[in-house]
Amino acid sequence: MSTTRYGESLRERWDAGCYICVGLDSTITGVPQVLSYAAPAQRQLLFNKAIIDATFDEACAYKLNLGFYIEHEEGILALVETVKAIHHRAPGMLVILDGKFGDIGNTSASYARFAFDVVDADAVTVSPYVGYDGIAPFIERSDRGVFVLSRTSNPGAKEFQALETGSEGKVPLYSAVASAVANSWNSHGNCGLVVGATAIAELRAVRDVAPDLPILVPGVGAQGGDLVSSVQVGRDAHGGVIVNVSRAIIFASDGPDFDMAARQALGDMNRAVRDAI
Amino acid sequence: MSTTRYGESLRERWDAGCYICVGLDSTITGVPQVLSYAAPAQRQLLFNKAIIDATFDEACAYKLNLGFYIEHEEGILALVETVKAIHHRAPGMLVILDGKFGDIGNTSASYARFAFDVVDADAVTVSPYVGYDGIAPFIERSDRGVFVLSRTSNPGAKEFQALETGSEGKVPLYSAVASAVANSWNSHGNCGLVVGATAIAELRAVRDVAPDLPILVPGVGAQGGDLVSSVQVGRDAHGGVIVNVSRAIIFASDGPDFDMAARQALGDMNRAVRDAI
Repeated sequence: MSTTRYGESLRERWDAGCYICVGLDSTITGVPQVLSYAAPAQRQLLFNKAIIDATFDEACAYKLNLGFYIEHEEGILALVETVKAIHHRAPGMLVILDGKFGDIGNTSASYARFAFDVVDADAVTVSPYVGYDGIAPFIERSDRGVFVLSRTSNPGAKEFQALETGSEGKVPLYSAVASAVANSWNSHGNCGLVVGATAIAELRAVRDVAPDLPILVPGVGAQGGDLVSSVQVGRDAHGGVIVNVSRAIIFASDGPDFDMAARQALGDMNRAVRDAI
Repeated sequence: MSTTRYGESLRERWDAGCYICVGLDSTITGVPQVLSYAAPAQRQLLFNKAIIDATFDEACAYKLNLGFYIEHEEGILALVETVKAIHHRAPGMLVILDGKFGDIGNTSASYARFAFDVVDADAVTVSPYVGYDGIAPFIERSDRGVFVLSRTSNPGAKEFQALETGSEGKVPLYSAVASAVANSWNSHGNCGLVVGATAIAELRAVRDVAPDLPILVPGVGAQGGDLVSSVQVGRDAHGGVIVNVSRAIIFASDGPDFDMAARQALGDMNRAVRDAI
């Protein structure tokens, strides 16, 4: 992370007690009625810009999930323009494109160009199933970050991620992934891990095998994960944890005050975290 | 597969000895010079339409990798229009959107709408890492197909996919995935698997644990996998295998005869397969 273009800013956010990443899961159906006059892509963009303006001084990072921007025409444009707006409003702020990319060779190189050059994201999420060489085109962009799925936040995450592996049969897959990323994949110093807030024991276990990697923790709020525990357990020695909260911030109000409600929600969460740690 | 909208056509293709899926990996840089007058998205679309016209009567299916269409503006439009062209030219023909999707809940539902409603693909590829509930939004669309990554074709695929799992420690992960898909995920009869042609022993092993599932086999040609072995080993009792070939067909010539060269290449491959089985 030391070599990434967002590393220094992120460290400053942590030092200031900001651990919350605002997840811009700005689904068309979720965007408040007050913006319904605009066409779908425009509606997402206007919504995002208002949320960014209201939260950037209290946010640790922003995360955009590709799935919410690909569904309708011009969605990619809304995605690109949103990232541009974040970079303009808050230079240095970490912007994560959550694409869970996991293809091979040529194709991964194409996704990397999309994520880092077209969208201009600072970091991506990737799925480890294909192995290192499939993810290398992302990792080789050493000024950008790569967060590798270790333990996801969904109810059925255990199906494969908890399978015991190894000669002793005692290393669950999510932990084998975390070890590989920490000890082998991270030669450029730009890797991180994804571990869900719904799996606090696993988050603690991953911290043990990867003490120094930044961890992105989704699953707080609507999915049931606890914010304060996530920060307490997820922080490394340097305070490195990024806890994503989406709906509980961006959809805190569905009225015309949605942006101020988002600001209030983020502020309240930040205070709760600072009081606890 | 029996309930899918392409099932009957696919069975007819197999009965006619057509096992080759044409992979429309139509990278901008790969499209012949003769089409360089057109803007990038238009160039991909013109190229694809010419390839489709020249190959549809000898193809088993078409596969489009999202990664090659997302990189430039309007690429999604080229993707959508290409799928439309295939459905128009060859009704019933299986069109696979190779997105290796693997997200959770809401987000997977959004990707499923993208793949099946916006793009109107007949099937997708997905990554199993998240577990069943993350993939369910695709599988629940029972008239469409879902090909789950079991053993990928890249050199480093073994890193996690070959990890031994289970209480006896003797089931490699790719096989655990194949078993889960065959015995549990396939309740709608619309699931398949992805196993690379570069791993013939693993292809045989997957056939043993999943005797009836259609298998999509990438990795023939540029990646080094052998076409005839892939068909011989990959076919189930009903002949169900789909062997993807991309560059060796679509880029058979970089001259103005590219479409006829593609037709020739596909025809030669089909004859080689029919002679061998």
